[in-house]
Amino acid sequence: MTAYALGVDYGSDSVRVLLVDTQTGEEIETHVVEYPRWSEGLYCDPAADRFRQHPLDYLESLQEALSVLWRHAPAGSSEKVVGISFDTTGSTPVAVDREGIPLALKPEFAANPNAMFVLWKDHTAVKEAQEITTAARQAEENYIRYEGGVYSSEWYWAKALHVMREDPAVRAAAWSWVEHCDWMPAVLTGTEHPDKFRMGRCAAGHKMMWHESWGGFPPNGFLAGIDPVLDGLRDRLPTETFTSDQAVGKLTPEWADKLGLPAGIPVGFGAFDCHMGAVAAKVTSGVLTKVMGTSTCDITVASYDEMGELCVRGICGQVDGSVLPGMVGLEAGQSAFGDLYAWFNRLVNWPARAVLEGSALINESIRKALANEIESKTIEMLSAAAAKLKPGQTGIVAMDWVNGRRTPDADQTLAGAITGLKMGSDAPAVFRSLVEATAFGAKAIIDRFREEGVKVDSVVAIGGISKKSDFVMQVCADVWNCKIDILESDQSCALGAAIFASVAGGAHPNVASAQQAMGSSPCKTYYPDESAVSTYSGLYRNYLELGAWIEGGTA
Amino acid sequence: MTAYALGVDYGSDSVRVLLVDTQTGEEIETHVVEYPRWSEGLYCDPAADRFRQHPLDYLESLQEALSVLWRHAPAGSSEKVVGISFDTTGSTPVAVDREGIPLALKPEFAANPNAMFVLWKDHTAVKEAQEITTAARQAEENYIRYEGGVYSSEWYWAKALHVMREDPAVRAAAWSWVEHCDWMPAVLTGTEHPDKFRMGRCAAGHKMMWHESWGGFPPNGFLAGIDPVLDGLRDRLPTETFTSDQAVGKLTPEWADKLGLPAGIPVGFGAFDCHMGAVAAKVTSGVLTKVMGTSTCDITVASYDEMGELCVRGICGQVDGSVLPGMVGLEAGQSAFGDLYAWFNRLVNWPARAVLEGSALINESIRKALANEIESKTIEMLSAAAAKLKPGQTGIVAMDWVNGRRTPDADQTLAGAITGLKMGSDAPAVFRSLVEATAFGAKAIIDRFREEGVKVDSVVAIGGISKKSDFVMQVCADVWNCKIDILESDQSCALGAAIFASVAGGAHPNVASAQQAMGSSPCKTYYPDESAVSTYSGLYRNYLELGAWIEGGTA
Repeated sequence: MTAYALGVDYGSDSVRVLLVDTQTGEEIETHVVEYPRWSEGLYCDPAADRFRQHPLDYLESLQEALSVLWRHAPAGSSEKVVGISFDTTGSTPVAVDREGIPLALKPEFAANPNAMFVLWKDHTAVKEAQEITTAARQAEENYIRYEGGVYSSEWYWAKALHVMREDPAVRAAAWSWVEHCDWMPAVLTGTEHPDKFRMGRCAAGHKMMWHESWGGFPPNGFLAGIDPVLDGLRDRLPTETFTSDQAVGKLTPEWADKLGLPAGIPVGFGAFDCHMGAVAAKVTSGVLTKVMGTSTCDITVASYDEMGELCVRGICGQVDGSVLPGMVGLEAGQSAFGDLYAWFNRLVNWPARAVLEGSALINESIRKALANEIESKTIEMLSAAAAKLKPGQTGIVAMDWVNGRRTPDADQTLAGAITGLKMGSDAPAVFRSLVEATAFGAKAIIDRFREEGVKVDSVVAIGGISKKSDFVMQVCADVWNCKIDILESDQSCALGAAIFASVAGGAHPNVASAQQAMGSSPCKTYYPDESAVSTYSGLYRNYLELGAWIEGGTA
Repeated sequence: MTAYALGVDYGSDSVRVLLVDTQTGEEIETHVVEYPRWSEGLYCDPAADRFRQHPLDYLESLQEALSVLWRHAPAGSSEKVVGISFDTTGSTPVAVDREGIPLALKPEFAANPNAMFVLWKDHTAVKEAQEITTAARQAEENYIRYEGGVYSSEWYWAKALHVMREDPAVRAAAWSWVEHCDWMPAVLTGTEHPDKFRMGRCAAGHKMMWHESWGGFPPNGFLAGIDPVLDGLRDRLPTETFTSDQAVGKLTPEWADKLGLPAGIPVGFGAFDCHMGAVAAKVTSGVLTKVMGTSTCDITVASYDEMGELCVRGICGQVDGSVLPGMVGLEAGQSAFGDLYAWFNRLVNWPARAVLEGSALINESIRKALANEIESKTIEMLSAAAAKLKPGQTGIVAMDWVNGRRTPDADQTLAGAITGLKMGSDAPAVFRSLVEATAFGAKAIIDRFREEGVKVDSVVAIGGISKKSDFVMQVCADVWNCKIDILESDQSCALGAAIFASVAGGAHPNVASAQQAMGSSPCKTYYPDESAVSTYSGLYRNYLELGAWIEGGTA
C-alpha cells in the first residue's frame, strides 16, 4: 500500500511542505508560503539586530501551505500520509505561560516582540552570551564543552535571559521557554502543557547545554548564579530528550481537521533544518554536508568509536543522535556566506538606487524596473567578470566576518574587512576577494574538524548557492582542496523531515532504510584545480593573518 | 603704467594661462587647454602605472591657450606683459639629446613613450627608487637626507635610470635629462642647449638630490655606482640652481611671435605647481598650504632660525628657497585624496554601468545619460548621507593608501583597506570611513612636521575638494583639530607663477611685495567641533594601528 510522509521545513522567511512517497522517494507535491507578518517587517529592528517572529505566522502559513498542497496533489493523497515531522531554524525559542502557550498568543502580549519567537539571527543577547560563557568556564563542570566552548547570542539561554531582563512583563508571565522545533509537534499532538511537553535531542543538545553526562540541563544553581531571572526555569523543563526517528505523539483531531490530515498519525520529534537536510543528503562519517545560503550550516557525523573521548573545540556542538540516531552529530557553520555577497550587492547598488529615484530622465515604472534589473543582475555579472581573474591576481585579501563568526570559535563581535586595495581594484576584483573569503572561512572549519580528529574527506553542498554559482563552487573546491558533490534536491531539509516522518510513522524500520528509499543524490561534482590549490594555500595564510589581527584589535 | 604678469600652470591634464595686473592683482583673463595627445590616452598604460606626455602636447597647448587668451583679453593686453613664469607637475623629466632637445621631438623617437616626459604619477621606477634609497643609506653622505630619507619612484633619478635601463635606444641618444619646469623657460629663452641650460632650485632640491652642502648633485661615483647607465650624467648638469624670483633669460623673438608676446621680456625660473600655489596663498611659517585634488601637495616654509640643523624625517623634501627665496621650503603630500573617493565611485558604479549597457528597457542615448547621471551624482549623494552619521558611529576604519603612501615615509608598495565591516555597513558609512581615512592620512603628515619641530598652527586649503565639499572639509577640521582657511583663488598655481613673473619682470622688487599686491585670501573658514575632535583622536589611534599592521604584513 502506498504510504506518504509529510516533511515540514520552517525557514527564516517561509514554510515549505513536502509530500514524499516513502517507498519510491517520489516528491509528490510541495508548496511554500511566506510568513505574513514577517514579510511586512513587523516586530523587527534590523539596525538593532532584533528579529522576532509571531507564532501565528507559523500556524497560519502551515495551514495555508497544506491547503494549497492538497489542492495540487492527486486526489486522496492526504489519506495516504503516515507521519509528519518538522524542522525549523534555531535556536529560535519563545516564552510560554503555565499552559505552554507562547505569550504572543495571549491578547495582552499580542504585539510585544519580546513575547514572540526570537529568530536564530537575532543578536540582541551578545552580552548575555558572554556572561554564560564566562560562568561556564568558571563552573566545576564546563557546560558548554560540547557546544564548542563558546556560548552564542543566537542560542536559547542567552535569548531567554536577555528578553526576561529587558521585559518585566514577559519575565512575570514566562513559565518556560520552548524551541520552535519542539513547539510545532507539541501543538499538533496537544502536548504543549509543561506537564506533557517532550523535547527533541537536537535543540537541547546543540543550543541548551543538555548533556547526559551531567544529567540533562545544567543544575539550577549554575543558571540562577548567572542571573536569578533564570531561577527555576531548568526544573520546569523535561529531563529526557528524544531523537527524531521517534514520535512525540499522535495528531489531534483538531489539528487533523485544520491541516486536512488523518487524525492520529504519528508526529515526529523536531530538529533543526540543516540536521535534517544532512540526513536527506545521506551524511556519513568523513562527509561534511554544507547548507550554503545566506549563512552556512555544516553537519557531519561520527561513530562512537571514532569519537571516543573527543570534544571538538570551537564548533557549534556535538550531540549524540542529533542528526542520526546512534551516531554523534557535529554542527558548525559560517555566519555569513551569501550574506556577504548580498552586502556587497547593496553597497554597490546604493548610488544607482539613490540617483534613479530622483532622475528626470525616465518615468516611475522604468525607474523601478531599472533599479530591480541592476540589483538582480549584479552578482551574476560580477561573478562572470571575477571568474576571469586568476587566484591571487587581485592582491586583495578579505575577511568574511560581517555577521561575526559562528565557527570556529564563535564571536559575534568580530567584523569583516577588505585589504590590499589599489586604485585598480575594481568591483569584480573586490567581489572575487569576498568569494575567496567565504571559502577561506569554510576552510577554517574543515581544518578545525581535522585538527581535532574528525574526518572530513569530501563535502556535499546543499542549497541555493551550490546550484547557482559555478564560480563560487569552483573557488571552494580549489580553496578546500577536496571534491564537492552538489545535492540534487532543492528541498533537502523538508526531505529530511519527510524521511524522519516515514520512520516515526512506521513506513520504515529505521532512518537508514528511509534514507535508502527517499534520500537525495549528487547531481554534479566539482574537483580542485591543482595549480589554484597551491596558490590558495599561500593566500589562506594571509587570510589567517588578517583574522588574527582583527581578533587582536577587537579584544 | 599698467604692467601685467603672465603665469603658466602645467597640470596633469591641461595647461592654464593667467594674465594678472601686477599692481591691483586683478585677474584679467585666463584660459585652459587640454593636452591633445594625452586626452586621447596615447603613450600611457594605466595598468602598468606608465604615464607619459609628449613635449608637443606642452608646446601646442600653450600656443593655443595664449591665442585664445589674447582674443578674449582687452585689446593691447599682450603689450603690457612684463614677465612670464611657469609651474609644472613634477618630478616630470625627459631625456634630451646633445642639443638639449627632448628625444620625442626627433623623428626616430616621435612615438616612443620612453622618449617623452615621464609624468609625476608614473610608477614604473619602483625598483630603481628602492635601489637609490639603499645606495644613499649606505653612502658616506646620505644624499636623500633632505628628501625625507626615502627616494621615490616618482622622482628624476629613478625615472631616468628606469627608462635608460629599459630602452637601449633612448640610453644611447640621451645626453641629459631635464625637468618639465626647467625645460619650458629654457625653450622660451633659447637656452635648451646643455652649455647654456640653467635650472631652478625647486626641482633640483626636492627631487634630484641637489644640496649645497655636498656641492650640488651627488658625485658621479655615487650615481654610477648604482648603475653605470648613470655614469657622467651628473657632470652634464649645471652645478648652480636658482630661485624663481630670478629670470632665466629673455623671451626669444621666435617664441614671442608664436605666443603673441613682446620679445625680450624676462622668463622666470620654473618650479613645481604647489610650491607656486603656496606663494599665491601667502604661505608663511606655521601655516601649511594643502592643494587638495586627486592627491595632495602640502607646502610650508620656515626661517633659517627656525630650521637650524633640523632635517625632517620622511617628508618629500626641505629645500632652501624652493618656495620663497630666503626661507626653507618644506614639501609633503598624500598619494591619494580625491583619488580614493574616485576609486569608490568607480567601484560602486560598476554594476549600474555594466547592466545599463545591456538593458533592453531604455535606448542607447538614455543609457549613456543615465550612467553619466549616476556616476556624476554619486559622490554628492554619498556625502549628503555620510554627513548625517556621527564620528565613530560606523565602526569602520579605513586606510587611504590605494596609491601607496607619499608621506610620511614614502612607500608606494602599501595598499588601502576597509575594516570593521558589518552587514549594516552601507555605502554612505563606507564612504564616510574613506573620507576619514584621507583626513587621518593628512593628520599623519601634520603630526610628523610637529614631532620634528616644524610649526603647523593652521591650514590653508587650495583646490577642487576644498571648495566642493563642506562635508570633507569639516571632517578634516575635526580630525586635524585646527582651523582651515579655504583659499579664494581657483587657480592659485597659475597665480603663484604670475607673482614670480612679476618679480622676474621687475614690476615688484621682491616676492613679498608681489604677494601683497597679487596674492589670494581666504573666502571661508572651517573650525573644529570640540566633541568630534575627541572622538577622532580615539579613531586616529585605530587608523595608526591598522597602518602598522599593513606595513608589517607587507614587509
